[in-house]
Amino acid sequence: MCELLGMSANVPTDICFSFTGLIRRGGATGPHRDGWGVAFYEGRGCRTFHEPRACAESDLAQVLRGYSIKSQIVVCHIRKATHGQVCLENTHPFGRELWGRPWTFAHNGKLKGIKRRPLTHYRPIGGTDSEHAFCWMLDQLRARHAKPPGSLVAVRRQIAELAADLAQLGTFNMLLSDGRLLYAFCTTRLTWLTRQAPFGPATLVDDDVSVDFAAETTPDDIVTVIATQPLTRDETWTTMPPGALLAFRDGVLIP
Amino acid sequence: MCELLGMSANVPTDICFSFTGLIRRGGATGPHRDGWGVAFYEGRGCRTFHEPRACAESDLAQVLRGYSIKSQIVVCHIRKATHGQVCLENTHPFGRELWGRPWTFAHNGKLKGIKRRPLTHYRPIGGTDSEHAFCWMLDQLRARHAKPPGSLVAVRRQIAELAADLAQLGTFNMLLSDGRLLYAFCTTRLTWLTRQAPFGPATLVDDDVSVDFAAETTPDDIVTVIATQPLTRDETWTTMPPGALLAFRDGVLIP
Repeated sequence: MCELLGMSANVPTDICFSFTGLIRRGGATGPHRDGWGVAFYEGRGCRTFHEPRACAESDLAQVLRGYSIKSQIVVCHIRKATHGQVCLENTHPFGRELWGRPWTFAHNGKLKGIKRRPLTHYRPIGGTDSEHAFCWMLDQLRARHAKPPGSLVAVRRQIAELAADLAQLGTFNMLLSDGRLLYAFCTTRLTWLTRQAPFGPATLVDDDVSVDFAAETTPDDIVTVIATQPLTRDETWTTMPPGALLAFRDGVLIP
Repeated sequence: MCELLGMSANVPTDICFSFTGLIRRGGATGPHRDGWGVAFYEGRGCRTFHEPRACAESDLAQVLRGYSIKSQIVVCHIRKATHGQVCLENTHPFGRELWGRPWTFAHNGKLKGIKRRPLTHYRPIGGTDSEHAFCWMLDQLRARHAKPPGSLVAVRRQIAELAADLAQLGTFNMLLSDGRLLYAFCTTRLTWLTRQAPFGPATLVDDDVSVDFAAETTPDDIVTVIATQPLTRDETWTTMPPGALLAFRDGVLIP
């Protein structure tokens, strides 16, 4: 199994605090030693960092922890390999362009038989069931909309249908984004919280680190964090119900 | 204009020495202040680093300089914006998946009217003529081979034809790779050298740094470096002829 971390915010926000907690689970407080990756959206662009080794021991992860890349959408993943070798091409998050946007996908779980689903436009580069599932989802979206769709309402409904379909093959906890919305789908384990005024302090579960968000934010900031397990011990996290697709824009859950 | 740097080697090799020279040109000894990026192939995978600002002043570029990622193919670019805003999505190298391989493209020059060429499968994420040209090339290759082609001979010939076609629109110095071959096409400025036994010392043009490759290599190593301008002052660089497509595999020029 793996752990996921996502962020959606209404202003460019760094994820240093949450990332500090997550990377401890990548080989220190948790068993996810087989790679880590993170995608930061900035404007229409997206930049990603990947390493096929434990992030708790990674110099690059330590650099990123202090590097303060500010982003409105972040997708992170730490990996414990269950399917596919430990190598760069099997390291989440995966990325592909669809409709002139950089899409990003990270998955926790196993999907039995996914590789029997045929693909048309997108092919996996590595050998994971996760990347095959991502290619299949984008293939299906592209089949429905050859050109960029005008409205995201239909796209969100279609992503919910595709995710529910994939969930029949096994465990499908996932984060997906096109840089505008952050989608989260849960079959077993995902939890989330929204930080907004009045901000207070928070303390990591996995490290002896606290932050006072009141000192770090402005009253208008809205930041939602989604994670496999709660990252802080003194905030209220909401467990996602199985089978639900949530979509966030600018830190806010879309009704 | 921009500067390009590519490497092809027969063993995983770090590019720290050449990268040290290149990044000096990104805002220190050269005017290429508008971004930098580098793609490292490792196995079938590829990881990239991008920043839309001067690499001479970038902490991340400094970290990478000493980070010693070993790769058989590297594609670097430092940017002086001539077409398109300074932002992440306009920062080379660009990447797309084709035939289950991560393709990477970096370009120096301007292509007049390229955006009038229609695209089918790949769409630009940013606003540069370079990314449009890359999408067009991959579109054309995909139109010729819907499935991964068995031989790279035909692909190389087709890339040469596509590059010659694009060169009619202006300046087209470019590096392109699928992780197996490194392709270089020149209309005005590209130069290259191959380092192999007996190895000797080399000194950067742009920085007071020397390296003795005899101490850093084994007798079987073969490393080809391609750059817009020679990076060292005491080695013999070969100027690429205009209109030529060169293809390197494992550091060796394919005849």
